[in-house]
Amino acid sequence: MPNVDICLTPKTIDLFDLTGKVVVVVDIFRATSTMTAALSNGVAKVIPVSDLDHCNSFQGNEYIKAAERGGKKVEGFHYGNSPFDYEGEDVKGKTLVMTTTNGTKALNLSKDADQVLIGSFLNASSTLNYLKKVGKDVLIFCAGWKGRFSLEDTLYAGYLAELLLGAGFEHNSDSVFVSIGMSNSAKIQGWEDYSANAAHYRRLNSFRNHEDIKFCMKMDQYDLVAGLVDDSIRIL
Amino acid sequence: MPNVDICLTPKTIDLFDLTGKVVVVVDIFRATSTMTAALSNGVAKVIPVSDLDHCNSFQGNEYIKAAERGGKKVEGFHYGNSPFDYEGEDVKGKTLVMTTTNGTKALNLSKDADQVLIGSFLNASSTLNYLKKVGKDVLIFCAGWKGRFSLEDTLYAGYLAELLLGAGFEHNSDSVFVSIGMSNSAKIQGWEDYSANAAHYRRLNSFRNHEDIKFCMKMDQYDLVAGLVDDSIRIL
Repeated sequence: MPNVDICLTPKTIDLFDLTGKVVVVVDIFRATSTMTAALSNGVAKVIPVSDLDHCNSFQGNEYIKAAERGGKKVEGFHYGNSPFDYEGEDVKGKTLVMTTTNGTKALNLSKDADQVLIGSFLNASSTLNYLKKVGKDVLIFCAGWKGRFSLEDTLYAGYLAELLLGAGFEHNSDSVFVSIGMSNSAKIQGWEDYSANAAHYRRLNSFRNHEDIKFCMKMDQYDLVAGLVDDSIRIL
Repeated sequence: MPNVDICLTPKTIDLFDLTGKVVVVVDIFRATSTMTAALSNGVAKVIPVSDLDHCNSFQGNEYIKAAERGGKKVEGFHYGNSPFDYEGEDVKGKTLVMTTTNGTKALNLSKDADQVLIGSFLNASSTLNYLKKVGKDVLIFCAGWKGRFSLEDTLYAGYLAELLLGAGFEHNSDSVFVSIGMSNSAKIQGWEDYSANAAHYRRLNSFRNHEDIKFCMKMDQYDLVAGLVDDSIRIL
C-alpha cells in the first residue's frame, strides 16, 4: 500500500526523498488557501515566485501580481494574500504571479516530486479523492512560518493523513502520529477555535484579517484539485 | 517573565537566538537519559563528541569510550548508549567520551547559549527547579532522529514546558502548544504506553532494547542537574 508522511517545516524537506511521490504543499494561512480560492473564482493559473523582483518582472495585461511579506500586502502591489482579493471580475482568465512569505518558497522546494498539489481545507475532500485515485506515496509538506513549525498547516496535514490512512495508506512517522493527534483535538474543539491557538492566527488577527482566517478554516468550499503543471498552478 | 520555547529538530536550531538563554538538550532514547544515569552512577564527566575518530582519539586510563550509531553500539567500543552500561564499579570517577547519532550533535549545536543542560525524565523535577531558580529564558532543544521530529523528545519538552508555564514562564510558540497537547495525552494514556507510538521506540524495541526504553520513560529517578561546564557535562 502507498505510504503517507508529513514534513513539518521547509527546513527538513531535504530529509525526504520526493522521487515518485505526490507532494501536497500546504500554507493554510493563507497562500495555498488563497490560490485555491483564486482558481475557483476564475484565475487561469498561478505562477509562484520566490522574490519580489521576479514577481515584478512579469509585464502585460494577462498578469495580475500579488505579494505578501510578514502577513501584509507589499506596497505597490495590487493584490495580496487574502482569498477575498480574488472575488471580482478583474481576475477572470488572468495569470496570477504571486510571492508570499512561506507558501511559494515551499512550492519551489517541491519540484523533485512526481507531482505537486496545493492543499487547503477549502478543497480537502477533492484532494483526498484525487490522492486515493492516483495511489502513489504522499508527502504533505507544511510551509510553516519562516522555517518554523506552524499549527494550522499541521492540522490540515493531520486531517488529510488520517483520511488517507482510512483509505488504506500506511505510515511509520512520528510527524503523522502527532499531526493526527492534533487534528483530532481540533475536531472536538472546532477547527477555527482550535486554530486560534496558532501564533500566526494571532499575528493575522492583529492585522484585522479575522475574516480571512475564518474562511481559510472552512471545509470543502470548492470541488477542485489544484497542482503544478509545468511552472504554474492550475486546476487539474 | 522569562519565556520558554521548543526547537523540535536540530534542522531548525539556527532560527533561534540562543544568546542569554538556558538550552535544555533532550534525547530521551537515549543519549541524555544515559548521560544522566552515568553521572548519577559515578562517572565524573561526559565529553560529547560528534564523530567516531574524535571519540577514539582520547587515550588513557581515565577515559571510557562509548559510541552508538543508528540505535546500536559501534563495534570496537566497550560502551554503548544504554543506561545499563554504566552501572558497574568500572565507570566510577572516569571521563566518559561519547558519540551518538543525535544527542551529542545537538549538544554541539547549543554552544552559543548562556548555559546548556541535558534533559531527561529521570531527573525532570530537579531540572525544573533549577530552571525556575535561574529564571532565564529557556529553549528546550529536541535532538530528534537524524534531523527529524521525534515523539519521545517532544513529550519531554511538552512536560517540562507546561511545568515552566505553571511557574510563570510565558510562551508564544506553536511548538510549545503542540508539545504540551501531546504530553497531556501521554499523561492520560501512560508515558511508556504513549511513547510506544514513536518510530524510535519500535526501532529500539526491534534491537531488544525494551528495558532501556522502559527505564528512560521513568520519572524522577535521580535528584541531580547536569549541564555543560567548559566542554564536558557534569553534575551542577
